[in-house]
Amino acid sequence: MSAPLWFGGDYNPEQWPEAVQVEDVELMRAAGVTLATVGVFSWALLEPAEGEYRFAWLDRVLDRLHGAGIGVALATPTASPPPWFGLAHPDAMPVTADGTRLTHGSRDTYDVCAPAYREASVRMATALADRYAHHPALAMWHVHNEYGSWTHSEHAARAFRDWLRRRHDDLDTLNRAWTTSFWSQTYTDWEQVQPPRATQYRPNPAHVLDFRRFLSDEMLDHFLDQADVLRRARPEVPVTTNFAFGDWVPVDPWRWAEHLDLIAVDDYPDRMGTEGAEQTAFAGDLARSFATRVPGPGRPWLLMEQAAGVAYTGEITRPKPPGEIARHSMTHVARGSQGAMFFQWRASRGGAEQWHSGMVPHAGPDSRIFREVCDLGGVLGRIAEARDADVVADAAVTWDPECWWALGSPSLPARTDYLEAVRQVHRVLWRSGRTVDFVRPDRPLPPVPLLVVPALYLLSDEAARRLADFTAGGGTLVVTYLSGVADPDSTVRVGGYPGALRDLLGVRVEEFHPLFPGETAALDLGSVREEVTQWSEHVHLEGADAVARYAGGRLDGEPAVTRHRYGAGEAWYVSARLTDRGLGSLIAEAAGTGPFPEPELDVVRRVGDGGVWVFVTNHGAGPRRIDPVRLGLDSDAHDLVTGRAADGLVVPGGGFAVLRGHAAAN
Amino acid sequence: MSAPLWFGGDYNPEQWPEAVQVEDVELMRAAGVTLATVGVFSWALLEPAEGEYRFAWLDRVLDRLHGAGIGVALATPTASPPPWFGLAHPDAMPVTADGTRLTHGSRDTYDVCAPAYREASVRMATALADRYAHHPALAMWHVHNEYGSWTHSEHAARAFRDWLRRRHDDLDTLNRAWTTSFWSQTYTDWEQVQPPRATQYRPNPAHVLDFRRFLSDEMLDHFLDQADVLRRARPEVPVTTNFAFGDWVPVDPWRWAEHLDLIAVDDYPDRMGTEGAEQTAFAGDLARSFATRVPGPGRPWLLMEQAAGVAYTGEITRPKPPGEIARHSMTHVARGSQGAMFFQWRASRGGAEQWHSGMVPHAGPDSRIFREVCDLGGVLGRIAEARDADVVADAAVTWDPECWWALGSPSLPARTDYLEAVRQVHRVLWRSGRTVDFVRPDRPLPPVPLLVVPALYLLSDEAARRLADFTAGGGTLVVTYLSGVADPDSTVRVGGYPGALRDLLGVRVEEFHPLFPGETAALDLGSVREEVTQWSEHVHLEGADAVARYAGGRLDGEPAVTRHRYGAGEAWYVSARLTDRGLGSLIAEAAGTGPFPEPELDVVRRVGDGGVWVFVTNHGAGPRRIDPVRLGLDSDAHDLVTGRAADGLVVPGGGFAVLRGHAAAN
Amino acid sequence: MSAPLWFGGDYNPEQWPEAVQVEDVELMRAAGVTLATVGVFSWALLEPAEGEYRFAWLDRVLDRLHGAGIGVALATPTASPPPWFGLAHPDAMPVTADGTRLTHGSRDTYDVCAPAYREASVRMATALADRYAHHPALAMWHVHNEYGSWTHSEHAARAFRDWLRRRHDDLDTLNRAWTTSFWSQTYTDWEQVQPPRATQYRPNPAHVLDFRRFLSDEMLDHFLDQADVLRRARPEVPVTTNFAFGDWVPVDPWRWAEHLDLIAVDDYPDRMGTEGAEQTAFAGDLARSFATRVPGPGRPWLLMEQAAGVAYTGEITRPKPPGEIARHSMTHVARGSQGAMFFQWRASRGGAEQWHSGMVPHAGPDSRIFREVCDLGGVLGRIAEARDADVVADAAVTWDPECWWALGSPSLPARTDYLEAVRQVHRVLWRSGRTVDFVRPDRPLPPVPLLVVPALYLLSDEAARRLADFTAGGGTLVVTYLSGVADPDSTVRVGGYPGALRDLLGVRVEEFHPLFPGETAALDLGSVREEVTQWSEHVHLEGADAVARYAGGRLDGEPAVTRHRYGAGEAWYVSARLTDRGLGSLIAEAAGTGPFPEPELDVVRRVGDGGVWVFVTNHGAGPRRIDPVRLGLDSDAHDLVTGRAADGLVVPGGGFAVLRGHAAAN
Repeated sequence: MSAPLWFGGDYNPEQWPEAVQVEDVELMRAAGVTLATVGVFSWALLEPAEGEYRFAWLDRVLDRLHGAGIGVALATPTASPPPWFGLAHPDAMPVTADGTRLTHGSRDTYDVCAPAYREASVRMATALADRYAHHPALAMWHVHNEYGSWTHSEHAARAFRDWLRRRHDDLDTLNRAWTTSFWSQTYTDWEQVQPPRATQYRPNPAHVLDFRRFLSDEMLDHFLDQADVLRRARPEVPVTTNFAFGDWVPVDPWRWAEHLDLIAVDDYPDRMGTEGAEQTAFAGDLARSFATRVPGPGRPWLLMEQAAGVAYTGEITRPKPPGEIARHSMTHVARGSQGAMFFQWRASRGGAEQWHSGMVPHAGPDSRIFREVCDLGGVLGRIAEARDADVVADAAVTWDPECWWALGSPSLPARTDYLEAVRQVHRVLWRSGRTVDFVRPDRPLPPVPLLVVPALYLLSDEAARRLADFTAGGGTLVVTYLSGVADPDSTVRVGGYPGALRDLLGVRVEEFHPLFPGETAALDLGSVREEVTQWSEHVHLEGADAVARYAGGRLDGEPAVTRHRYGAGEAWYVSARLTDRGLGSLIAEAAGTGPFPEPELDVVRRVGDGGVWVFVTNHGAGPRRIDPVRLGLDSDAHDLVTGRAADGLVVPGGGFAVLRGHAAAN
Repeated sequence: MSAPLWFGGDYNPEQWPEAVQVEDVELMRAAGVTLATVGVFSWALLEPAEGEYRFAWLDRVLDRLHGAGIGVALATPTASPPPWFGLAHPDAMPVTADGTRLTHGSRDTYDVCAPAYREASVRMATALADRYAHHPALAMWHVHNEYGSWTHSEHAARAFRDWLRRRHDDLDTLNRAWTTSFWSQTYTDWEQVQPPRATQYRPNPAHVLDFRRFLSDEMLDHFLDQADVLRRARPEVPVTTNFAFGDWVPVDPWRWAEHLDLIAVDDYPDRMGTEGAEQTAFAGDLARSFATRVPGPGRPWLLMEQAAGVAYTGEITRPKPPGEIARHSMTHVARGSQGAMFFQWRASRGGAEQWHSGMVPHAGPDSRIFREVCDLGGVLGRIAEARDADVVADAAVTWDPECWWALGSPSLPARTDYLEAVRQVHRVLWRSGRTVDFVRPDRPLPPVPLLVVPALYLLSDEAARRLADFTAGGGTLVVTYLSGVADPDSTVRVGGYPGALRDLLGVRVEEFHPLFPGETAALDLGSVREEVTQWSEHVHLEGADAVARYAGGRLDGEPAVTRHRYGAGEAWYVSARLTDRGLGSLIAEAAGTGPFPEPELDVVRRVGDGGVWVFVTNHGAGPRRIDPVRLGLDSDAHDLVTGRAADGLVVPGGGFAVLRGHAAAN
Repeated sequence: MSAPLWFGGDYNPEQWPEAVQVEDVELMRAAGVTLATVGVFSWALLEPAEGEYRFAWLDRVLDRLHGAGIGVALATPTASPPPWFGLAHPDAMPVTADGTRLTHGSRDTYDVCAPAYREASVRMATALADRYAHHPALAMWHVHNEYGSWTHSEHAARAFRDWLRRRHDDLDTLNRAWTTSFWSQTYTDWEQVQPPRATQYRPNPAHVLDFRRFLSDEMLDHFLDQADVLRRARPEVPVTTNFAFGDWVPVDPWRWAEHLDLIAVDDYPDRMGTEGAEQTAFAGDLARSFATRVPGPGRPWLLMEQAAGVAYTGEITRPKPPGEIARHSMTHVARGSQGAMFFQWRASRGGAEQWHSGMVPHAGPDSRIFREVCDLGGVLGRIAEARDADVVADAAVTWDPECWWALGSPSLPARTDYLEAVRQVHRVLWRSGRTVDFVRPDRPLPPVPLLVVPALYLLSDEAARRLADFTAGGGTLVVTYLSGVADPDSTVRVGGYPGALRDLLGVRVEEFHPLFPGETAALDLGSVREEVTQWSEHVHLEGADAVARYAGGRLDGEPAVTRHRYGAGEAWYVSARLTDRGLGSLIAEAAGTGPFPEPELDVVRRVGDGGVWVFVTNHGAGPRRIDPVRLGLDSDAHDLVTGRAADGLVVPGGGFAVLRGHAAAN
């Protein structure tokens, strides 16, 4: 029998009386829960005074869960130091850019660079390891929670300087990398270098970028301090931490992944319906790529948090439509998540997240939400055999957090939303039925026929070489605007854009021509006129052919989209921000149509030792008939969810199927 | 002869040369001024150095006013410490949440928790009491001005802890009340508790709510320090302070009212015309309710400040249309205000309020504004006999500042504008001709047939019981969405909303379903489809009947408005944000139409020893004929303003009448 | 042969390797560059440690430039202290209003009041003077860069008090000027006076205004410290500094101009096309007026910075259309600029301004931008003979930075955009073909027939007298709304607006009646109805005639525009914010049409010893035929740009001509 898929959520029983905790375990069993994340916010109870530990209550929780056959992801609670900590160690509270020292009163309030905090974190991890490393419920270690709190303290300054010394060797190199000769910023002593604190005018973008890189590495050090302790205590239990996603998060998951035994992500799409499905597929593909595209053997990954009942839209918190809980979960599991976890088990009555959803909502178990949770638990139990099968990707897209950070600089010709630029490419590929691997451009590329490089502002020489090799080897490369412009120090490559890619693309861009909000330009895509917003460029052909030209306006007749034969492949350049439709048709022209071009249908193919599994999730309202042959399955495939034969199967609107078979002979 | 109505304004003669001050008193007499508020901003002149007092100039001002027969509301100037104070006592300057210590440079810059400030305040009150307690002009003591300056200082931290000890007895109770088990916030020592200062992420809503309650009580202590001194000096002179209104003001007038001899309010409507009339009636009803609905005997109340010539709209400062000064004043006097006061007598030439209006504007007495002021003075002189008659209310609405504060939390499913929710109900009742008493739900309710409870998020068990008793006793109760959800610690009542009112209303709400900005839903109100914005809910009937159901969309066919027979009365639930028209027609269905459903006509009935007075203010443009019978008057009633008989009286557009008679026999 | 026009830009060679620096000088020669501004950001390289100087690299730069015949504007680099400075002198870093001490990390980070900074500045100026005063390349000294960094430090507090003592003599006077009797702000000791730091509520507007005046004077002192050193070293080399423009800049160029040998301005229009042309003409007229309308002999002036290739629009950085570089440059040169300079020579690869444009863009010299730069260099070489000819203005407009600052107060009846009010008047006059002199109203006025006074809120008695004299002497005066209201201490003149101008204008304004955003009013301009937005007033005639009246609304039938015969002239009052068209037609009615009413044509007439030059720049798309007679030229005038005869000359769309001739006989 296959190992189970993880199903459950963050479990914070300390908020509830004993009777509720007893009911919790009964309800978990009813729902098919297999894993509970415990301890994330328990520091104050576990160590009520410095060095004094109280484990009895947690013993009871773990024993009770174990008694019900439920595994535990035991968290180190270091993301939320208790009130006494800040009082005892005021220097370990974070400092904002303008010098405000934050105080206890929320969560996540710590200075990751402060020695007192680092020591307290290791002490806590050691105490937990000592007590629970051999507890039978222990399924994984969950270090910290959503790393991401910034600090600009003196502790940070010291650590930043040490990091800079390692990155840049000496001050001359740093001065060159940061172009400090401009604006009289030349450093003559390491002590002069500070975090990017409040200053009179715009900061140096290279300074800011390196500070984010430093914070990522510094937080990774904090993680490794604890991971070392936990691994020593019981090496076979995997150690993970859950990544949050947002432009404020100074964590580079690519670099962290090789230090984790299991990659965990939190996913809170802010839209519902098809848009929410796209966001979810994006998050799942990203998480899988972090996990699998590491040096050495790939890692497993897990959706560690999602909202059970609601979507946080930025404006309001809106109930998810019926079935959405399962659709989002399946969209992740299809992409390789080893299960579907939620924050949190039971919605809180009080505290700052009292309106965060729960698997058991305020209304209690007699509720639509809890019924959907139970249904999902049942489904996951029936599809566990697919758990370790590999996902088959048929396109790749670059994703570079450092580029995201660099494009956050206030000094660019126009604000370019890197996340949206990448999401648009992913969206277009998803709608064409492709499954996407994300890649970090300076690492080996997967053997896919199509690689899309959106808005890759920062580009190293090595990465540029990899893109050229990919193309020369017969691949189709599609690069979009604003790519290749700067080196990894965010220094512009002069002589014409896109500096590092001019030879490969066969173009030279003389000027950027961003558009005003609301302004549009046009380009001629053969039969249709394509609308351009936000961005256009003055492109000169230097070897490439023009596939489409600007029509009207200042750039009338100039090349807009180009194609360049390069070795055995082709390198395309899209110099403008297009509509989804326009970009989609261009990619289809460059690379052919995707395998499952069914709008609103999420199709993911998995291959493992025992066979082939195809996950089909229908995000549309109407029923869809399945054709196993088109999905590459043999005719005796069947649906693990319903037990029915795949041949002639109809997936109802909002429903899903997991087809198990063998690769068709075709 | 009846006691006069107060008429006048804040008088700051220290800005002007002696000759202007002499003219002031002449103009006041011409205008019929009876009261001047003196000394609000005079600390710097009264105490030019610590402990050195200069009273000669104030003696002259008081003597001169007295000579003209004008009473004085003598203010303690403690709201605006002078420059020397902050220099001598930097620790008595307020501190913002992020630790910025404010400095002198404006008004209201004090730390209400600082010992030095508390001592200086008492010293000043004592000096004024010593000198002026027996001055013949003294009509009332006016302590401070618009209490409201926040502080997060160490002084505040200490006082907050003391207050918390009194409220919660011990740390265990506090930890439970605040759900500190979540997010590792458990306090193990009182010293760990701080004001809600800048922290990494969202604050604990119970922490923030208690801090506002604390500030209200702390400011009340500051008030009482002074009131005690003043009352000891001359017990028969009433002590008051003027309440400001705004969501930033951490003062709960319900709790303060019992400590005041006279409730004073400042009212600055930001709209004109009918909207301004509604705002004014709202403020007047609120002020009267604070004054009368206290434990023990009711208090008198007074409109202490309004703008003579202009409305501050948030965007611009706009002259009020002709007659608006009188209409706003009469709308307050009708509701029981013991007069109509203004800020300020003469518009300032300099300083931060140089563009605040004055009864004597920059243009001088030869001005429309001053002429309208004189007319109003004349009217007030003719209607003084109604001064102490009781207002007759025919509906009640809950108003809870703590609920307002709690709904300001950033963690709710949607931002709900409590003020607007209550104003909407008041507006709908006002337009139906009802006079509204506001009630604090945990205090005894007035004997009215209709009680409306809008968005009462916080609800104590006691308050819930009072609502049930009201209904069981035959009343009509109308509760709107988001009510009864949390207890007074803002802890959600689980098992289904609206927790504390489920039995009374006969419903169980499973999920909230807020709407996006711009999104609408619909419900079927019999003949019309009613538009829903902002808020809707998933309602289950548990004893109630559905009066209206959602039509279309996710909640199609589910109950939207319900009615539940409860004892001798009925409890209605409105689960959605409706239009004014829709809410109005529902209330009419529940409770019948109001007594004077005349759009744009403000009608208030007063009953006293000597008879009945009906105030009619016509906020519309056209003339309105009065029917004394319909107003419940005998046929020989007459208008105190014009002296004409009430029978056949026409109130011109923008005009008003005060009809005096006896209750009709009917 | 005439002295050359300056052509070139900021040159920061320290960013580039030697080979690029060698290419720089070759390209400069090719482009016709005559002046390079060097050293603006070089402090860190020139003084790598306190008191240690490194000049060798700068020697090479100056020698190389001199070798190519290029002059140098040698900058003192004091606007951008190096990292070591802030570390050695933390007290010399600026402090924000809320007490945040800024740190190094950008440019412009200094406390202009800090002794350590003042000393370091003089030391640096001295070192540069010692080394380079007699360098043959030295064409001018360029002190600092864009003065403007605010500070609220204790150093600032001390210096502010000294300044206040000089301005107000004693505390009584200051207390009166600031109306400190209001809000208990009376100062009893100079030590109590602070900069306008963070305080509880609105600041005192007179306090804020004096602080801006103080900062202007304090920065001027800092400038003079250096100027004295430089002038002593070599008196014949002119000293300048480049003014930035913005409401945040606390510098009054009128007061500075008399201390400069050459007025320099930076101009970054944020629009293109005709709007950009208007902005450019506005900046040029302003700069010329600063330079020429000083006590004593006029100064030369120079456009020191503009963007070569792009416009910073606030939203995006957009390439300027073809020819715009030359059109903007010619618009300045036409108005008397002694050349056209740019920031910067070569676009940076790194640093915060890596996306600021350059004369040599990222794309390199093979680029449209560099080709346009070369063309412009050629043109400037051909028109140098006009360099010192006087500009002939035919209208004047008041411009008062102090009024701009005062109208930034948050306490006004409506936010009034002073800059836009003045720009509107300039725009209307520019479109009517007039060349405008700006005037500071308390200085002697130029002999023009028309003077327009827009929104001159602050007005001294002396300035009011000058306006009266101008009118009495036969001039046409047009005053717009909100003028004359306050005295220079921003104290309102009571008795009726516009206080200081009531007699002159023959009106009395009783109330201001600002309009809501989106609201309009109307007035009857004879044949057309004119739309009013933002502002209107209740005007009484006291001697003036109504030229136009409000139509409809609250002010229906009241005077809106008035005319008052005063001595030999006429004083008009426009009480409302009109459209450009309406204001233009009123001015035409008051003063006749302008001389060159050609939309989109910029025509400036210059008169010098050798003749007459007329600069014509065609900002429109179509060609325009020139009529020398209408331009007041004799028939044998010719175009210096093309060498063609003026008679029959056609200036192509987007082109320009510089016609040289003699004044026509007519």
